[in-house]
Amino acid sequence: MPESERIEISREQIRNMEKIDRLKLINSTPGYKSVNLIGTTDPSGNFNLAIFSSVIHLGSNPPLLGMISRPITVERHSFDNIIETGVYTINHVHTEIIDSAHQTSAKYSRETSEFKATGLTPVLMHGFKAPFVEESSIRIAMSLVERQEIRSNGTHLLVGEIQFISAPKNIVREDGSFDLSAAGTVAMSGVDTYLACRELSRKGYARIRKG
Amino acid sequence: MPESERIEISREQIRNMEKIDRLKLINSTPGYKSVNLIGTTDPSGNFNLAIFSSVIHLGSNPPLLGMISRPITVERHSFDNIIETGVYTINHVHTEIIDSAHQTSAKYSRETSEFKATGLTPVLMHGFKAPFVEESSIRIAMSLVERQEIRSNGTHLLVGEIQFISAPKNIVREDGSFDLSAAGTVAMSGVDTYLACRELSRKGYARIRKG
Repeated sequence: MPESERIEISREQIRNMEKIDRLKLINSTPGYKSVNLIGTTDPSGNFNLAIFSSVIHLGSNPPLLGMISRPITVERHSFDNIIETGVYTINHVHTEIIDSAHQTSAKYSRETSEFKATGLTPVLMHGFKAPFVEESSIRIAMSLVERQEIRSNGTHLLVGEIQFISAPKNIVREDGSFDLSAAGTVAMSGVDTYLACRELSRKGYARIRKG
Repeated sequence: MPESERIEISREQIRNMEKIDRLKLINSTPGYKSVNLIGTTDPSGNFNLAIFSSVIHLGSNPPLLGMISRPITVERHSFDNIIETGVYTINHVHTEIIDSAHQTSAKYSRETSEFKATGLTPVLMHGFKAPFVEESSIRIAMSLVERQEIRSNGTHLLVGEIQFISAPKNIVREDGSFDLSAAGTVAMSGVDTYLACRELSRKGYARIRKG
């Protein structure tokens, strides 16, 4: 990397930024984020679909994934549905559904199904109550097992356990893991940028090098 | 995406997998992960550097990033140092330092500096106590503000507040956010795959589309 001139951004400069500029900057600081469609159902059976860029791995035994939900000061359909029903689905966004996936972030009313509004297709699988996205390659059924409030900003960490996974056979590697770039799964940076990823290298377990 | 034959992986199948296979599979389920080098110092001033694929955005006002630390049942140098000193640095991994970054995950003793062992260069900035990685493009100074135990698996979520950010001027976009792909920042999938990302599209704020 050729060394370029550097800038420093202080805590005070961050505090004094305009809200949208700060959102865009701070969201780009951790590096790339996963981007998933979260499918839920309300107690009356209405389907909801929303895009989240905060799904993370928490542990593999038991298989736990986390997700950050914004403060509950405004209406949060997905969050309410997860708390009320205890189940949700995680559906990977791939290159061919970016537009529809992004469109789910528009502020539809509680009665509007984002599936209908964006053209994505809900599909029910194995009697699981929450809807999956038929267009998604990798789909995961989740049960809520824990909820933690992050006191510093009123955000919630939802902890879910994987109930089952559905994936195209041709993206499963020999060791059983998923080849996300073959699946067309995209990454997000900041609040608005979708990216395709290309494998550079696979590493073995790192050992201490002699001499 | 051409529809391929699908496989289903049940909760029981996941539970019965071999540990390493399960690790690889479950780590690949959330989608892409950020990959960062975490710089810390122990109370005696010894530097430590470790690779983490769990840094996430928690909120922009105040500017908070989270990080998952594995259960404390084994020696965790970074975790101990963060708790004891209250500070740490987040340094993006880019294409040219993947090998050294990955090598920090070898099990060095508490007395060994991963900087020396891997050839990365520690740099102190603005009197901040924890070391940055000179080879990293985007570097962030963090103060620990909160720690939450995830009861389901004994993992900890460390919540930190950004103190300042240092970045190459040429990767800052007009709106002030970072162009991660210009910075060469890489993503991770699973436990072993490093990927380069290429921007596909930037989206505006989604609004409800009229019929």
